[in-house]
Parts: sequence; structure tokens; C-alpha cells
Amino acid sequence: MANNIRVTVWHEFRHEKTNAAVRAIYPHGMHNAIAAGLRAAGGMTVRTATLDEPEHGLSADVLANTDVLTWWGHTAHQEVRDDIVERVQQRVWAGMGLLVLHSGHFSKIFKRLMGTSCDLKWRQADDREIIWFTAPGHPIVQGLTDHIIIPREEMYGEHFDIPEPDETVLISSFSGGEVFRSGVTYRRGGGKIFYFRPGHETYPAYHQKEVLQIIANAVRWAAPVENLAPQTYGNRQPL
Amino acid sequence: MANNIRVTVWHEFRHEKTNAAVRAIYPHGMHNAIAAGLRAAGGMTVRTATLDEPEHGLSADVLANTDVLTWWGHTAHQEVRDDIVERVQQRVWAGMGLLVLHSGHFSKIFKRLMGTSCDLKWRQADDREIIWFTAPGHPIVQGLTDHIIIPREEMYGEHFDIPEPDETVLISSFSGGEVFRSGVTYRRGGGKIFYFRPGHETYPAYHQKEVLQIIANAVRWAAPVENLAPQTYGNRQPL
Amino acid sequence: MANNIRVTVWHEFRHEKTNAAVRAIYPHGMHNAIAAGLRAAGGMTVRTATLDEPEHGLSADVLANTDVLTWWGHTAHQEVRDDIVERVQQRVWAGMGLLVLHSGHFSKIFKRLMGTSCDLKWRQADDREIIWFTAPGHPIVQGLTDHIIIPREEMYGEHFDIPEPDETVLISSFSGGEVFRSGVTYRRGGGKIFYFRPGHETYPAYHQKEVLQIIANAVRWAAPVENLAPQTYGNRQPL
Amino acid sequence: MANNIRVTVWHEFRHEKTNAAVRAIYPHGMHNAIAAGLRAAGGMTVRTATLDEPEHGLSADVLANTDVLTWWGHTAHQEVRDDIVERVQQRVWAGMGLLVLHSGHFSKIFKRLMGTSCDLKWRQADDREIIWFTAPGHPIVQGLTDHIIIPREEMYGEHFDIPEPDETVLISSFSGGEVFRSGVTYRRGGGKIFYFRPGHETYPAYHQKEVLQIIANAVRWAAPVENLAPQTYGNRQPL
Repeated sequence: MANNIRVTVWHEFRHEKTNAAVRAIYPHGMHNAIAAGLRAAGGMTVRTATLDEPEHGLSADVLANTDVLTWWGHTAHQEVRDDIVERVQQRVWAGMGLLVLHSGHFSKIFKRLMGTSCDLKWRQADDREIIWFTAPGHPIVQGLTDHIIIPREEMYGEHFDIPEPDETVLISSFSGGEVFRSGVTYRRGGGKIFYFRPGHETYPAYHQKEVLQIIANAVRWAAPVENLAPQTYGNRQPL
Repeated sequence: MANNIRVTVWHEFRHEKTNAAVRAIYPHGMHNAIAAGLRAAGGMTVRTATLDEPEHGLSADVLANTDVLTWWGHTAHQEVRDDIVERVQQRVWAGMGLLVLHSGHFSKIFKRLMGTSCDLKWRQADDREIIWFTAPGHPIVQGLTDHIIIPREEMYGEHFDIPEPDETVLISSFSGGEVFRSGVTYRRGGGKIFYFRPGHETYPAYHQKEVLQIIANAVRWAAPVENLAPQTYGNRQPL
Repeated sequence: MANNIRVTVWHEFRHEKTNAAVRAIYPHGMHNAIAAGLRAAGGMTVRTATLDEPEHGLSADVLANTDVLTWWGHTAHQEVRDDIVERVQQRVWAGMGLLVLHSGHFSKIFKRLMGTSCDLKWRQADDREIIWFTAPGHPIVQGLTDHIIIPREEMYGEHFDIPEPDETVLISSFSGGEVFRSGVTYRRGGGKIFYFRPGHETYPAYHQKEVLQIIANAVRWAAPVENLAPQTYGNRQPL
Repeated sequence: MANNIRVTVWHEFRHEKTNAAVRAIYPHGMHNAIAAGLRAAGGMTVRTATLDEPEHGLSADVLANTDVLTWWGHTAHQEVRDDIVERVQQRVWAGMGLLVLHSGHFSKIFKRLMGTSCDLKWRQADDREIIWFTAPGHPIVQGLTDHIIIPREEMYGEHFDIPEPDETVLISSFSGGEVFRSGVTYRRGGGKIFYFRPGHETYPAYHQKEVLQIIANAVRWAAPVENLAPQTYGNRQPL
């Protein structure tokens, strides 16, 4: 694992501009709350990128120098350019880690990597969320015990239409009685992917210490191995 | 799949003999409630076997003529003879399906097949259990929609110390806020295994229609293919 | 499982029109060789569909009445219309089984469902292929023992860039020393997917009895459960 | 990951004492060849333990101070004390990594953790083994490209009777046309397990650079996370 992981925190960054309630919680945008948490965790160099920047802030150069990308989007999934989604997918295949956060479940990049609808049930009603750990010893829950509680959050409920995960690391319950696979891992090509549920824009999840710790742990887990060999495909002579 | 699946419903059958409350719910024993549900489902020939019968009712002949075995035990796991556990394990490897029910999570046979402690959290406090389906289209939830509710049950909570399942089919929530992987599948050798959570002896889960339907579905899913070829191991000449 | 599975065998059907060697092996096209094998297996109603038919033979009505679709393409993947690929994907999510054959690994539909490049190594040099079974007891190898041999085939070699399979059922070796995961299963939404390697157009694999038996077994395995409940997503009220 | 991983290389150490051919290849025992490779890789403190030492060299204290245990056994599996196997299993559950090497597939500890027979086909006939990588980007193949070749080895062939692996990292072909899942991972409780095939006692695999590199990579992969929280099971009060 790299000692200095290069992280790009990507954010749609629209709600904060139009919704005072969101802005009150995240005055500098959700991306900067996440980035601050990662910087505090240490061992990473963190930059941010947002939808309305040129190339959504994800130039070929930025991606080539990103070990792990985090992705939050919600209201503007359709505005993300297909060629840039393609670029991100190629970079994941080449080894870049990807953390998909909350409503990013419906992002073009996540749906492309999963091959499913990624649909789910939801409700905005101040549910209490309890996130239980189903894989103790997994790096993603390192330093935590067996569950964390988020006092108020949007509910996401099963069925969550994703492929059978490589590992189911976290499962949530909500006040309303629903459950959700809140932390699941996949590998696509050389890249590792972690979906992590919390983070509705009207709640302060990305200010909560344990949530940030899981994100930091997941960044470390998703960072590519050093000296990753590019694969050779195509016509091959016999030995 | 066989048109006439031969099922043996194995039951510890101790609580009913000593606890009037359990006897009131299951006057003929839990095994007979389960067996009645399976007979009503059709396509199966169902017998029962219990701990206190000779060889626990699981003679070599009975097992050789069993396509799917269901297992409920709780208070007397340690009384199950090791040689008979070995016999059951061998039969699973040879293709027999196995349904492990509720407190059977701590049975010798389940722990042997899993290789883990199979431990969990629990509470007896009349929790409401909601069982959500995480694999729509799976034969085990055939004919049901997206969840079932058990009005009162014992709580089982994560971490459930099992291997990463081949498929996670069901996840429960409980009134107290816990979650549990309530329906999980595994393959061991030629045999298919389904763990299914409900069924504490002081609640009437095995009289509930949807619970019985899932058990019947799981029996059909776990039945071995016909003409299963025995595998050849050991020294092998080159082609 | 339906007693009468409705199968549509989809074929690109181009090589046979331009290459006399292929036509000599498959005078009626590869699709008709596959369809004949399935009809002989019984329990299925089989039709065919090809690229150059209107809507590639895959109208909404045809797909709605297809339980399992098999897919062979090679030279004209790019000519398959995106809207029809989308239609097939939606139908898989709704429960239709999908068998992807040989060079179909690079089809639009398979890449979309996998989320990976689906790339591989290959060589046309009359390799002998031995397909070993890694999941005895799986319905897909029902009636067969532990391996089959294809005297001459195109080589496909690892790394095969696919997600970690739900189940790895078959692994091949080739004369040149390569290996390949030749039979792998996935679930996407309500649909089951099986990738099966053999079937290069210049070799007679789809006339070989064991190959056809595996395809027939896989069709039965991939057929949807009856009365599959459509899932409900979106906003949900608390209980 | 610990910067200084504490490794114990366990070896049966019998063949070297009775077979001059083995002794000629491994004059200090296979364990010391493996240990030398790990020491050269760096970042580890390596000790050895063997069957004929008191408690097989695996006292409670040694295990408590072992992050990763490697295991090679063959002719004397039955001589390993059950209470010590139990001790090793408990330590794996508590987070210790375990590498099972070659004929260790039939060890008590591996069979207990897998729950299957762990049987396979085999042949001693100087086969050439090619180990292909099926999970590029996995830490276990870090620094290597897409395959390694072992000029002469014992053959192991499928069906290898193990549970569906969490990850299939390596697949071998042999001169005789067989294939084998040569590198597979599992998690049991808090511990990570890697089975790695090469290492028959009459061939010098543990002197081969790439083989030692994979073992060193696997040790780093299997090392437990720091500050692993012990899990709480049993009776639990509601929130």
C-alpha cells in the first residue's frame, strides 16, 4: 500500500448552492467535509473535483494521478459526460480504487460497473440508522468495534439491486424496520470498489467521526498495489 | 430436481417434553409442525427423526434415502454423537441438501461445515422480526414478494460468525435495531446448505404460512441433482 | 422451474455466409445446431433469432416470451443496436436467463452486465481443450462426470477480465498450457447468467454431445422461477 | 498492516529426516527455505516450529505472538494433536493469518476451517506447472505479471473439494492437461486464509524466487489489521 495515497474527492456540489439547509450543514460543500476528514486521517494527499469544473475536474491527468476516487452525486447524474464516465471506468480497471457514497448508487459510473439497476427503497423521515459490522477484521472497520449509530439519516431499504457482493462488510437497520447492505466491496479489473451508504445532504453524516473513519479506512483498503503490472490480452503464441 | 424429494426433518425434541409453554405451541413437537408444512407443499415424502431415537433416527439407511435433511437443535447439541455428525457430513458431501434452522447455528454439524464459531448476539424479548429479501428471483423466495413479518421472535444479531455466504438471500431487522443475515446459502462438496433463522421454541414461527413456504422452497432448492456422479480423487495417470 | 422453457437462440449468423469452412461445419448456421441440441434435450420450446432480422429478431414481444436467451456473436458486436441491448438487459433484470457463448464475451450485452472489459488471451492453433468441473453437483454439469475433452478448439487464456464469479463451475486447460474459467455464473437483478466458453466458428463444438448437454443443463438452471414478483423501489412509508 | 509482521513457519519436518533426496534439496528442512525467503523479503520477524517439538512448537504463547502462520504437512497429519489444532483454529478466528501450503490441503486445520474433504487428484511425474493469475491487482501477485512457471512439480488436479473461494487468485495447468485452483482465499472469523499449491518435497519449489515472492506477498495480505476489536456475542439488551 502506498504511504501517500493520492485521493480525489469528487462531488456534484449542487445542493449546497440552492438549498440553504444543506449549506448550513456543509458551508464549504460536502466534498470539503470529506476531504477534511481524510486529511486528518493522514497518509493521504487529498484534492477535490466537482461537476461544474471543466471536464468535471477529472482530466486525464488528474485521474492518472489519483489512487482512489470518491464519488457523491444525486440530482445531476445525467449531466455527467459519458466520455468522462468512460475515462473513470478505464482508470478503475487499471487499478484506481473507487468509493461510491450514498446517492452515488444511481451514478452512471456505479451502474456501469455493477451491470444492475442499482435501485432501492428510500424515505426521508429522520430515521435512526444503526450500521452493523458483518466482517470483523476487515480493514474497512479497523479501529471500530461492532456497530456505529447515525442519529438521523435518510432511509435506504432492500432490495438494493446490486450484484452479490464480493464481501458484505456493513448492514444497516432503520427506525422504520428496513435493512440495507450499507457497505459492500467489489473488484472490477485491477480496481477495488466500495459502496458506502450514509451521507444524505440534509444530515451531517460527513461530520461524524466514525463515518469519516470508515471512509478513511476504505480509501486505504482501495488503494492499488504498487507496481501493478498492466495485463496483456489478445493473440498469444504457445510456450 | 426430483419430483418426489425425500425429506427427513430432524429435531432435538426436548423442550416440548419439559416446557409446557413450548408444548402448548407445538403439541406434537416442532418437527411435526415443519413436516406438516412440507407435506402440504407437495412433491415431497417427509419423515421425522429425533435425538432420543436409536442413532438419533439417522441410521446409514435413513440418510442414504434422504435427499434433504432439516436440523433443529438447541439445548442438547453436545449429546449428538460425533460418529453420526460425521455420517451426516459425509452424506452432505455426497449431495444431500441440509437446512439448518434457528438455534441449529450452534449444532455440531453446522459448525463443522462452516469452520467458524457460528456465534451471534441474541435476546428474548418479543421483538418483531422483518425478513427482507436480498435476492429476488432466488428459488428460496419464490412466490413471495419482498419481505415477511414475524410478529414476535427471539432476536439474533450480527456479527453472525459465518463464512462469507455464497448467496445472502434474507436479512432481518428486529425491534431493538439489530440486523441478521437470516437466510444464507453454501455448497460443501456436492451438497447445498441453507441456514434459516426463525424458529425459537417459545414462538409459533413454524405455524406461520410464509415461514413454512420458505422452508419448502429451500427444500426444493437444496435437493440434489439426479444421477449425481461420485467424484474420483487420488492418483491419476496422464491422458 | 418451468416444464416448458421458452428458449431463444440468438446468433450473429455472419461467418456462415462468407466463410465456406464455417458453412461446411454449420450448414444451417450455428444457431440451428444449438437449437437442435436443445430440442433433443426436451422440455423446451426453442426458436432462433439473428442479427440481420428486423430488431435483430429480438422484438419486445419475443423477449417478453423468452425464458432463456443464448447469445453468440463475434465479428459484428458493434452492429447490435444499443436500444436492443438495453431491452435485453432490462429483460435479464426482470428474470430472463442469459447464456453467453464463446466470443460473446465481447458482446455489448455481456460487457454491460459485467462492468469489466471482458478481455482475454486467445490463439487459433487447434489446441485440445479439457474442461474440468470445479463444482460437482451443480445442475450445469448434471449427468456428466468430472471433465470433457474437445479435440480441437480455439484457445482462450487467463486473465479473463470478469468480476469474481458467483460460482466457477468449469475451468479449461489447453495444449499450449493456458487455463481459462470456461463456465462461470452470475446473477444480475432477477436473471441468471452463464458464460460458456466453447464454440469457435471453425470447429464443430456445437455438434459435440457433451457441449450440447452442458448448454441444455444451463438453460434449465437459468430459467426463471415461476410467479417471479416484480420488485418495488422508490419512496416507502414506514410500517 | 503491521510494519513488522510476526511469522511462524510450521513444518512437519519428517521427509527430510528419512529421505536423502528431500534432504539434498532442503538440507535445513523446507521450513528454513521458506523462512529464509520471508526474511529476505523484509518487514517480518520469522521463526519456525516443527511437529516433533513440544506442543509441535505451537504453545499458546507462540501463537499469541504470531500474526501469520504458514503450514506444511504431509505424512503425519494424524500425529498433530487435536487440542493444538483447536488452539490454531481459535487463533485464526481471533485474527491470525494462515497460509496452507501444498499437501497441507489434507491437514486437520485446513479441513476443519473448510468443512469439506479437501480431496483432489494427484500424480508424481515431473509435470511442468504454469500458474496463471486470475486476479491481477491482488496483493498476493504484487510485483509479478501474469503467470509463473515451475519446471517440475507434482500434479494436483480438479475437482479440488473446497468451498467456493472468496477469491480465486491463481489457477495452474499441468503437462498432463489437468487444472487446479492453486491460490484461493477465505476469511474465517477475523482471520484470513490463503491456500497455495506448490511445494512437493522432492522438487525445489521453495527455492524458486517467484514462489517465495507469492508467499511473502500472501503473508503481508494475511496479516491482521492493527487494534482488531474482539467481538461480543451472547445476550444483548435493546438500545
